[in-house]
Amino acid sequence: MSWLDDVKWDAHGLVPVIAQEATSGDVLMFAFMNRESLQQTAECGEAVYWSRSRGRLWHKGEESGHIQKVVELRLDCDSDVILMRVEQLGHDPSIACHTGRHSCFYQRYADGAWHSVEPVVKAPQDIYR
Amino acid sequence: MSWLDDVKWDAHGLVPVIAQEATSGDVLMFAFMNRESLQQTAECGEAVYWSRSRGRLWHKGEESGHIQKVVELRLDCDSDVILMRVEQLGHDPSIACHTGRHSCFYQRYADGAWHSVEPVVKAPQDIYR
Repeated sequence: MSWLDDVKWDAHGLVPVIAQEATSGDVLMFAFMNRESLQQTAECGEAVYWSRSRGRLWHKGEESGHIQKVVELRLDCDSDVILMRVEQLGHDPSIACHTGRHSCFYQRYADGAWHSVEPVVKAPQDIYR
Repeated sequence: MSWLDDVKWDAHGLVPVIAQEATSGDVLMFAFMNRESLQQTAECGEAVYWSRSRGRLWHKGEESGHIQKVVELRLDCDSDVILMRVEQLGHDPSIACHTGRHSCFYQRYADGAWHSVEPVVKAPQDIYR
């Protein structure tokens, strides 16, 4: 599996992953993968991250149903960051964030403060039951 | 400067930053900022990163001329990742990568290997002189 060896894993054996919606171009979220999760992601065609908080593999959507179907995997010039273009499944309009928003990047800087500027598409209590 | 305190800096005082071209939606690069570089980025309206390899502030484009004009700054749900939408200046078509490519994410996974799939727009030796 030389393609896995080509990735420059960090000191914790992880690589940062940017998930981008293929159709809209929207950056949806940022998370980490370890070697096993990247291999599973490539094999099953769905995003499998490494949850640092839970210390285990995290098949995105396993609770929420908000699965990310992999469209393509890209590696950067230093081979230490992955860009994963995905189809964000499970809800229309699509939801990637655990807050029930389309994207995790919903706080916008203006005039010396961060402002929440994106709507909650579906309440978290209705996502995680 | 409470907006800077709202960012959850990592153990090294850094925050990961995703740079996305505002017009195309292309993810251009991934780098880090510290508190000072984020403040300068907001104040001058151009991307100022923290170079971990050089251990100093890095005004993107200072050598290459490939300045990134800030369109907006976004913070994610955990307040520990920044998405910076930019106008990539200095060359047409735009170049963000030190290899002379449009984007740093030019290696695409297919059939068990990473393949370089984006052209070099301008040779690095013609960029860094």
